[in-house]
Amino acid sequence: MADSLHWIVPIAGVLAVLFALYLARDVLSRDKGPQAMQDVGDIIREGADAFVKRQYTTIGVLALVAAVIIGVVIGLVENTAVADVPALAGLKIGAMTAVAFLVGAGCSMLSGIIGMTISVRSNVRTAAAARRSLVEAVQVAMRGGAVSGFLVVSLSLLGVWGIFTLYQVLFPEVGIAQAPFVIVGFGFGASFVALFAQLGGGIYTKAADVGSDLVGKVEKGIPEDDPRNAGVIADLVGDNVGDCAGRGADLFESTAAENIGAMILGVAAYTIAKNAGWSNPENWIFFPLVIRAFGLLSTIVAMFFVRGNETENPMNILNRGYWVTAGLSVIGLGITTNIMMNTGTATGANGIPAWIWFFGAGVVGLATSVAFVYITQFYTAGSFRPVREIAEASKTGPATNIISGTAVGYETTLVTALTIGVALIASHWLGSQADLVDKAGKNVGGIFGTAVATMGMLMTTAYILAMDTFGPITDNAGGVAEFSRAEAGAREITDRLDAVGNTTKALTKGYAIASASLAAFLLFSAYIDKVNLILGNQIAAGKQGVVLLTSVNLADVNVFVAALMGAMLCYFFSSLAIRAVGKTAQTIIVEVRRQFREIPGIMDYTGRPDYARVVDITTRAALREMVAPGLVAVAAPIIVGLVLGYQAVAGMLMVGTISGVLLATVLNNGGGAWDNAKKYIESGHLKDDDGNVLGKGSDAHAAAVVGDTVGDPFKDTAGPSLHVLVKLLATITLVLAPLFIR
Amino acid sequence: MADSLHWIVPIAGVLAVLFALYLARDVLSRDKGPQAMQDVGDIIREGADAFVKRQYTTIGVLALVAAVIIGVVIGLVENTAVADVPALAGLKIGAMTAVAFLVGAGCSMLSGIIGMTISVRSNVRTAAAARRSLVEAVQVAMRGGAVSGFLVVSLSLLGVWGIFTLYQVLFPEVGIAQAPFVIVGFGFGASFVALFAQLGGGIYTKAADVGSDLVGKVEKGIPEDDPRNAGVIADLVGDNVGDCAGRGADLFESTAAENIGAMILGVAAYTIAKNAGWSNPENWIFFPLVIRAFGLLSTIVAMFFVRGNETENPMNILNRGYWVTAGLSVIGLGITTNIMMNTGTATGANGIPAWIWFFGAGVVGLATSVAFVYITQFYTAGSFRPVREIAEASKTGPATNIISGTAVGYETTLVTALTIGVALIASHWLGSQADLVDKAGKNVGGIFGTAVATMGMLMTTAYILAMDTFGPITDNAGGVAEFSRAEAGAREITDRLDAVGNTTKALTKGYAIASASLAAFLLFSAYIDKVNLILGNQIAAGKQGVVLLTSVNLADVNVFVAALMGAMLCYFFSSLAIRAVGKTAQTIIVEVRRQFREIPGIMDYTGRPDYARVVDITTRAALREMVAPGLVAVAAPIIVGLVLGYQAVAGMLMVGTISGVLLATVLNNGGGAWDNAKKYIESGHLKDDDGNVLGKGSDAHAAAVVGDTVGDPFKDTAGPSLHVLVKLLATITLVLAPLFIR
Repeated sequence: MADSLHWIVPIAGVLAVLFALYLARDVLSRDKGPQAMQDVGDIIREGADAFVKRQYTTIGVLALVAAVIIGVVIGLVENTAVADVPALAGLKIGAMTAVAFLVGAGCSMLSGIIGMTISVRSNVRTAAAARRSLVEAVQVAMRGGAVSGFLVVSLSLLGVWGIFTLYQVLFPEVGIAQAPFVIVGFGFGASFVALFAQLGGGIYTKAADVGSDLVGKVEKGIPEDDPRNAGVIADLVGDNVGDCAGRGADLFESTAAENIGAMILGVAAYTIAKNAGWSNPENWIFFPLVIRAFGLLSTIVAMFFVRGNETENPMNILNRGYWVTAGLSVIGLGITTNIMMNTGTATGANGIPAWIWFFGAGVVGLATSVAFVYITQFYTAGSFRPVREIAEASKTGPATNIISGTAVGYETTLVTALTIGVALIASHWLGSQADLVDKAGKNVGGIFGTAVATMGMLMTTAYILAMDTFGPITDNAGGVAEFSRAEAGAREITDRLDAVGNTTKALTKGYAIASASLAAFLLFSAYIDKVNLILGNQIAAGKQGVVLLTSVNLADVNVFVAALMGAMLCYFFSSLAIRAVGKTAQTIIVEVRRQFREIPGIMDYTGRPDYARVVDITTRAALREMVAPGLVAVAAPIIVGLVLGYQAVAGMLMVGTISGVLLATVLNNGGGAWDNAKKYIESGHLKDDDGNVLGKGSDAHAAAVVGDTVGDPFKDTAGPSLHVLVKLLATITLVLAPLFIR
Repeated sequence: MADSLHWIVPIAGVLAVLFALYLARDVLSRDKGPQAMQDVGDIIREGADAFVKRQYTTIGVLALVAAVIIGVVIGLVENTAVADVPALAGLKIGAMTAVAFLVGAGCSMLSGIIGMTISVRSNVRTAAAARRSLVEAVQVAMRGGAVSGFLVVSLSLLGVWGIFTLYQVLFPEVGIAQAPFVIVGFGFGASFVALFAQLGGGIYTKAADVGSDLVGKVEKGIPEDDPRNAGVIADLVGDNVGDCAGRGADLFESTAAENIGAMILGVAAYTIAKNAGWSNPENWIFFPLVIRAFGLLSTIVAMFFVRGNETENPMNILNRGYWVTAGLSVIGLGITTNIMMNTGTATGANGIPAWIWFFGAGVVGLATSVAFVYITQFYTAGSFRPVREIAEASKTGPATNIISGTAVGYETTLVTALTIGVALIASHWLGSQADLVDKAGKNVGGIFGTAVATMGMLMTTAYILAMDTFGPITDNAGGVAEFSRAEAGAREITDRLDAVGNTTKALTKGYAIASASLAAFLLFSAYIDKVNLILGNQIAAGKQGVVLLTSVNLADVNVFVAALMGAMLCYFFSSLAIRAVGKTAQTIIVEVRRQFREIPGIMDYTGRPDYARVVDITTRAALREMVAPGLVAVAAPIIVGLVLGYQAVAGMLMVGTISGVLLATVLNNGGGAWDNAKKYIESGHLKDDDGNVLGKGSDAHAAAVVGDTVGDPFKDTAGPSLHVLVKLLATITLVLAPLFIR
């Protein structure tokens, strides 16, 4: 037991769930402020609850239908000729995949629903706390956000562990070396939910934002978050459904799919360990789960370090916890690699034990996540060159603002790609030094090194996600304060927290991109392993002319065309997502205008707009508009796989990932930079040639508002949805591989 | 002789040059209109000549330096251990490569200089002709443009043929099967010139456009092309340097590099033909040159069909010539494949002769070019959904205009990628049916089929390029008419021609993209052939552990990272190009403002602005700003090749091509659609809910102007420069392959 550490997985998972419940109770027991605040909070809460109910009902129905289709298709297609585990071929593997899909989808939905429920109850309590103390407000928002963070990571961990253990018990004919392959449906389920949660949430949030701003700010000239605007509640609800539910589902998928992928890669190391007679060979398969468990434990401890004093920058308070999480994760990584990566008396290069090389790879992953946090800040924070450049360009109008922002967005791919490239090559090199050589003479350590780096990076997910959900909570708290006309001191505190929340939201997107790209390599490799498991079975069964897939050859015309399709898919999908925001915003504009026109006394506060109606209309429109891009994302890889074959679809997956990661980087960072260029001008940092401040109300500010509006659907709808698309490509091909092999 | 057809190459080349000189004489002999027109024409001509002189001096110096470096590097690196032709190893091959590079660069520059010279002398003559007759004006502009078209294609053809023949005579130790490899320097020289011509021209044209519009139209409220604006001549000069010189160099490179690449691929077929004892085996290598010669002849004939009547749509007059070119090209293709693709008694699949399959592949190429012409029109012309959508979105302001245009730009990748994919797979399939199987049992017909398709597509290049240069000539003619306050009838005709010119310019970009993407496959394959020639020599020399490059494996970490770098390079390069426009425009804005302030009487026409000074400042700034993106484009593949090796650089090339083609599609079509959405509103097609026209001066129009301005550097600087980047990646790796092999 001491040298296997598996036991820590369920313990850490359950502990994290209990801790999340404790945090939820703690937040809910707090003061909700004066009645005016509670009223606003209630309206937001009702709107969000209505959205959650409708959204998850829709997704649930879609998931059920998809599960049945997947089960039947896999059951029919995966006969013994194309089975990864011949003992299960037929409807048995179909049913197992469908059940795994549903469990994955269910866990993701559950964490999203509970996270949202707490998030939209934390906002009013944060606003109330802001009346007394900055630190208390930070703590309430961070604890509210951590409920999401812990549930996402722990339910993903418990889900993968649970379905793995269940299938091991129920189907003893599945060897441990095949077991990770039969649970890939879990990852697909998680991707499926993430796709629609992110798309629906992203469309909702930006349509509400753009729609209510265009009528309120532009046409009526009233401030943002003004209670006279019928769309304002939809906007506040939107912050939650995009950043909390959407990003939560995104990272749920990351942790689930990448865990399973890493377990699949662990099989090669397991086989080597078993043949060499090293003790506990199954450690190589369980390793990713144990690493994740240590990450959860580190984050629980770190939550107690979220403290500081009233005068300090709130970002420092959050950073304190982040560095504790990262530091403890390094220790956990050291313990896990040391205990679990037992290679007997065999050592890696230069006589250095294998575990040390893998520990290095894990540290590379952690370092990459830190690097991305700073890269994102450089490109999107007002204190650096890029945002200033955009603000300066705003002086000559909206056109130059857009041109400059586009140039900045494109530029951000340089450092992003270099960082990912260095991280991949470094972790691959470190892993290959461990000298894990299989029977065929192939060094499998390199690819496993990239998997360990991904696992290292994902150790801090729960904390990052807590910081992310901190964003919409504080944003909402600001809205509640504005809405309920709270005292100036409270508003000043919520404004400061809101600014910090913008940074943490941007940073989480950088983190999600980085994890998707680092994981990409792991996920292709898992796909190739699965294809080869099937082809190997065919060869063993004596089928003629079958050769293992040893290379994804871009010089093959089918692979090249599939790669072209993968890259194109990213643009086309983004186009649909961006257009969906526009269409949904149109319906909101029409409704808000109607209310201004038809409900008497709105402008002089004697009449109350019908907020719920706007929320309802937005909800329905967003859910309707998410269907087209969602279907395209699911159908494209299947069509390419059926038409061009299993090698080509691997090309689509790889080049689609490259293209998606870069396009998402452009959209997220460009959007973030435009947003902060506007804030930079609003804070009075921009001056004309004579030194006069060009602030709110200046032409430069109007130009910057255009850039901010353009950036909204880029950074909050299309960009984040691309993260999910990239991972969906991986899970869908992993599950449907038997379909593409003839 | 009857079954070799080689002799037609020099004859057609020289004939085309003579025809171009005839056209030039014809245009120059025509009426230049009243003195007022001639004065304006002189100013534009002087500005353009000054730019051409400075631009080509700069490029010439850069090319000389590059040639010396390439010669020395290749001479030092390409020792017998990594030589493609061991007999030439060392400084000999270095010198040959450098000379080929200079000849390629020289031919490209020569065609650019003469083309520009005639183009900026045709504008005033077109304006003068417009005072009399629409058809005559069309003919003058088209003949002026055709000078460029014929020179580009014929000098590229004669250059490749000349250097090939020269090296065959001078170095008899080079077998014909190795000969295409030793002239790759020609293609690199052409790419090198194209890179700087397109970048410099693209930056100049849009900086002048944006800069003079922002001061003239926005700040001073005077019309476009108004003589009071000091930047207006620079703007008119810019149209020529971008569309005529820039696009000419772009397509010069296409025809040169793709010819050489196709000849390299022909070597495999040559070897099969020789071993099988078919007559004239070298036909397979000369085939691309002969096809090109037939294309030139078809275009010469077609020029006599550019006629029509005064009342018809001028686009129809141009289309008439295009369809004649395409029709004659099909016949030429049939003759060439029938005569040259002799497979003795061997047939392809189903007993159908090989030549018929290749004829089919060539027709696929021609059909692809036609398809792209229509796709471009659908996405960028006002009569279809995409442009209308953008115009509608302009009603809610510049932000929604930009969002909608971005969605349209992204959407255009769908049809583009599908068309390319279908064309590649179809021509590959057709070629593979010819059953050209080499000694190793590999069917080489498929890849050769894609080469034949590319050659088929490029048969119409001279005509397309004539239509392209028709654009700046008529645009300038409009400017001359406006400037010299010509009679209304003349202005009405030049306006109509200008609108047609916008279509032909957009369509040429679509054509350039399509040819780049279809050719991509051919160029990678040529690179792999060259690498294998070197590796084969190493194996023959007994070097241990060398294996041929049979696959570019994306699952290899180095290849994947290089692919990521290739995709990133497209964004980063575009970012630099877009930013260069912004910086150059700033210098123009400062100067134009200064002239309005300091030169008395400009606004009431009593003072004359100093046009030449703006032209000079723009020229210097554009040439300064082109250096950074140019260096990045050249250095990136070299660095990746040196660090990650020869297989990885192939991955960079392939994924860079995919990424570049798609990004260029987004930028070109998005920009074109924005431009035409503005024109759509200006022509009074947009109406509000009550049916009132929202025309010039409306808020919707102002919003559309923002979109148009944003699109300018996208479609005329970054997009076209990406075409060149994609092909540069191919030629640079082809020439420097020995550097990446250890």
